[in-house]
Amino acid sequence: MESAICTLVTQFKAYAGKDGSASTLSKDEFHNLVKAQLPNYVKNSSDAEVIDQLMGSLDEDNDGELTFSEFWQLIGKLASKQGGFNQ
Amino acid sequence: MESAICTLVTQFKAYAGKDGSASTLSKDEFHNLVKAQLPNYVKNSSDAEVIDQLMGSLDEDNDGELTFSEFWQLIGKLASKQGGFNQ
Repeated sequence: MESAICTLVTQFKAYAGKDGSASTLSKDEFHNLVKAQLPNYVKNSSDAEVIDQLMGSLDEDNDGELTFSEFWQLIGKLASKQGGFNQ
Repeated sequence: MESAICTLVTQFKAYAGKDGSASTLSKDEFHNLVKAQLPNYVKNSSDAEVIDQLMGSLDEDNDGELTFSEFWQLIGKLASKQGGFNQ
């Protein structure tokens, strides 16, 4: 499990570091991450409007950037769905 | 990322399925999971008292069982610490 957690952290950082703040995902960075890393878990992952809505629903403080904690809630939902858990 | 998420779900299920409810972790299952799967991320992971306290802090509805969602909050905190993010 530790290596899986490490992978998620490392990948988040790789995308978050591309522009602006290195510890948060801008809209572009989020688009790129979802398209490349979550193509099966996020439906219509290449549809910009879908990703915009998804980002809006996650960005709790509405500052246009996703923190790791906000991003973690998304992958928690995807994981929960994947595992067939009720949430 | 999808394979890392899948690993976390699969491992959770493997431990959760050992006794009682197959979709939640009992105290024993949680102990076993932390000891075997998170030995470096959780300090003193083999100390039963530490694990009891940790479980108490995660079990939001205090029913002695951890749901996947409760467990996800724990690994989110560990991941955040690992990544050096403020939380």
